[in-house]
Amino acid sequence: MELPVDASRLRADIEANAEFGRIEDGDSETRGRTNRTGTEANRAARDRLVARFEDAGLDIAVDAVGNLLGTWTADSADPDAAPVVSGSHLDSVPEGGIFDGPLGVYAALEAVRAMQDAGVEPDRPVAVVGFTEEEGGTFGNGLLGSAVATGELAAEDALGLTSADEIDGLVAGETLGEALDRIGYRGDDAVEPATWEAFYELHIEQDTVLETADADAGVVTTITGITHCEATIEGEANHAGATAMGDRTDALAAASEFVLDVEAAANEVVERDSDSAVGTVGSLSVSPNATNVVPGRVDAGVDVRDVESESMETIVAAARDSLDRLERERGVETSIERPFDVAPTPMSERLRKAAHDAADEAGRTAIDLHSGAAHDAMRVARVTDASLLFAPSRDGVSHNPREWTDWEDCAAATEVLAGAVARSAGATAQSGGEE
Amino acid sequence: MELPVDASRLRADIEANAEFGRIEDGDSETRGRTNRTGTEANRAARDRLVARFEDAGLDIAVDAVGNLLGTWTADSADPDAAPVVSGSHLDSVPEGGIFDGPLGVYAALEAVRAMQDAGVEPDRPVAVVGFTEEEGGTFGNGLLGSAVATGELAAEDALGLTSADEIDGLVAGETLGEALDRIGYRGDDAVEPATWEAFYELHIEQDTVLETADADAGVVTTITGITHCEATIEGEANHAGATAMGDRTDALAAASEFVLDVEAAANEVVERDSDSAVGTVGSLSVSPNATNVVPGRVDAGVDVRDVESESMETIVAAARDSLDRLERERGVETSIERPFDVAPTPMSERLRKAAHDAADEAGRTAIDLHSGAAHDAMRVARVTDASLLFAPSRDGVSHNPREWTDWEDCAAATEVLAGAVARSAGATAQSGGEE
Repeated sequence: MELPVDASRLRADIEANAEFGRIEDGDSETRGRTNRTGTEANRAARDRLVARFEDAGLDIAVDAVGNLLGTWTADSADPDAAPVVSGSHLDSVPEGGIFDGPLGVYAALEAVRAMQDAGVEPDRPVAVVGFTEEEGGTFGNGLLGSAVATGELAAEDALGLTSADEIDGLVAGETLGEALDRIGYRGDDAVEPATWEAFYELHIEQDTVLETADADAGVVTTITGITHCEATIEGEANHAGATAMGDRTDALAAASEFVLDVEAAANEVVERDSDSAVGTVGSLSVSPNATNVVPGRVDAGVDVRDVESESMETIVAAARDSLDRLERERGVETSIERPFDVAPTPMSERLRKAAHDAADEAGRTAIDLHSGAAHDAMRVARVTDASLLFAPSRDGVSHNPREWTDWEDCAAATEVLAGAVARSAGATAQSGGEE
Repeated sequence: MELPVDASRLRADIEANAEFGRIEDGDSETRGRTNRTGTEANRAARDRLVARFEDAGLDIAVDAVGNLLGTWTADSADPDAAPVVSGSHLDSVPEGGIFDGPLGVYAALEAVRAMQDAGVEPDRPVAVVGFTEEEGGTFGNGLLGSAVATGELAAEDALGLTSADEIDGLVAGETLGEALDRIGYRGDDAVEPATWEAFYELHIEQDTVLETADADAGVVTTITGITHCEATIEGEANHAGATAMGDRTDALAAASEFVLDVEAAANEVVERDSDSAVGTVGSLSVSPNATNVVPGRVDAGVDVRDVESESMETIVAAARDSLDRLERERGVETSIERPFDVAPTPMSERLRKAAHDAADEAGRTAIDLHSGAAHDAMRVARVTDASLLFAPSRDGVSHNPREWTDWEDCAAATEVLAGAVARSAGATAQSGGEE
């Protein structure tokens, strides 16, 4: 079955979407965007996706939290059969890249259009989804739309979350429900992955495994588990000039040891047990944070991930040990909480095989790897078979305007996606019927 | 010459002043205040000081940047003689203590009242000064009023400084000139330390030397030099889950080494050369500062002080060496600037002797020490003889609501101040004339 993807149509879609929230940083080498849920940029990106759904003849559904679904029910398809769905998200982190999310949404749409163009006759409906607030940071901690769609989070709880920021139409203190009403994307249709036959998500890799292997696509075996810890270190704020070195309880000096201890623990696990393990202190807030005051308090946010729960626990334990040591050695008071903890999520073996078969048929190279990043596919995998596919990303850079995937790489990975979706939808080509 | 200080009158003044910008933190053990230049709290504190000046029969002057001067010209005094001035500041850091600044202002006023009550007949006018914006952080970097008064900073430049904050009447973007107009303290009188015979400033110690020695007062030999450095460390922001440990250039991990290197360098100088040396990384800003993103950039503010310039240079050199090493070992890019650099300032030997003599006569113990903190006396010392006296501060805590000096300690140090001021003003007691 031939499923040629229209690379220039895909590129045009991604480039048009990149205009919404575009960052003008004067650097012609980068193409960043800030597209946060509920902003005017987010409204514009959604409006355009809906228009493209309409262009492709899809039926459009919008659920309570703004998840968007465009469904193609071919003449050949049983309209009551469970659909095969593919997609990702349109929102971005502040000053993020143009591929993270939109590639998966528009590649899914391109897969549908490729099937339509090739005269493919699927047995089932084929749909494209754009989940709301995948990145988090505006309303909640991320994977919000897929959490509601899969029943992990009640829609009313999600709709009551508030944004702290005042940016691009977003009003400080506004709830998600109010923001969606304002931009016109609070719907009442059902978007329920539990009723789907299969879910595929194509995403940029955000690491260099595919680039190094010169592969066209990655087939994820497991999405790593994620733990977030919030550590607090309290010392004593004091005058930086008048407080002798020996009289200090400097919370930042203690926190600096903590950062290095977490890094060392992750490096040791990589060395010894599991090379997929990572441990990061990504955020650090110092109080009072004045050059001439000995820091009195530091709050640190720690991110720990791996495909094995055991190595995650090893790093978290090392973080706890570090704080205990700092209490003894530096006289600080510490605490650590673990507000977010998700176990590693294996992907569907059946869909992984479909992806590899599709790659073989298309003459594309696909390799197995793990995902260190969480994606909506992680939520969907709890209620139906899910598969996560990766496209290469240059230097592995993401969440950054320098994020980049060459257009031919976008198209190649989309071909693999299209083939896998068509297989799962029981498609046969109208003209040839090779399968 | 007997100069009994009215301890309860002094306490009442400091407690009344503490109400302006009082912090209600629910902790009955602490009495903090936020009294920033140009706020309503600052207006109220100034209004009360002016009223107390009037109660004591002082002539009031307000200069272009709001420095307040209250002058007592006794019948015995030559009104054209250079005055002996004492004072400090009314403003505080955010959530600071109630003694830092106000003790020096109201102790100076109490010294004048004690001289009046004792019938002392000075040869010269005796005055009390309250300098504007000593702490900095609202308009500029601190010591602002004394910098203008001593001619180091042009009044028009100071008046054009803007505040970024919106707090307690202060308007974001407002200039110092506008703020002073608003609170009614932009004057056109002269406050010129170069024309003063002598300047004394009483301040809380902010360290534990006096407490440890159980001394009533400290006589500062030298105010330490201060250097501020601003260091920047650039790594690469990247996804905390998708970026393998070996592929990172983590700006925060690098900055953590920098913080510990600065601390180690200061400790080494203390151990080897000069026990008054301090080095502090007081501020650290992480970008993008999200738990799930490898930090891409850190800006750090470094404060280095000592009574010897040489040991300051040793610590600054170590900070530079640390950054060079981090460039080599961690692949980060770094820079360091030194926007603020003041050499150590010795205090007047003549006034130090007057303070010791006054302490002896009053039966109070006074010891020599250095000041690690900058004070307005540092600016004034450039244009006339200046002396800095310290009162003990509990546990050395300052810039913090837990800052505390017992009321009897305030009174004891004020007795030393009053005696020193009287000596410098050529005072004799009307009734006794013991001297």
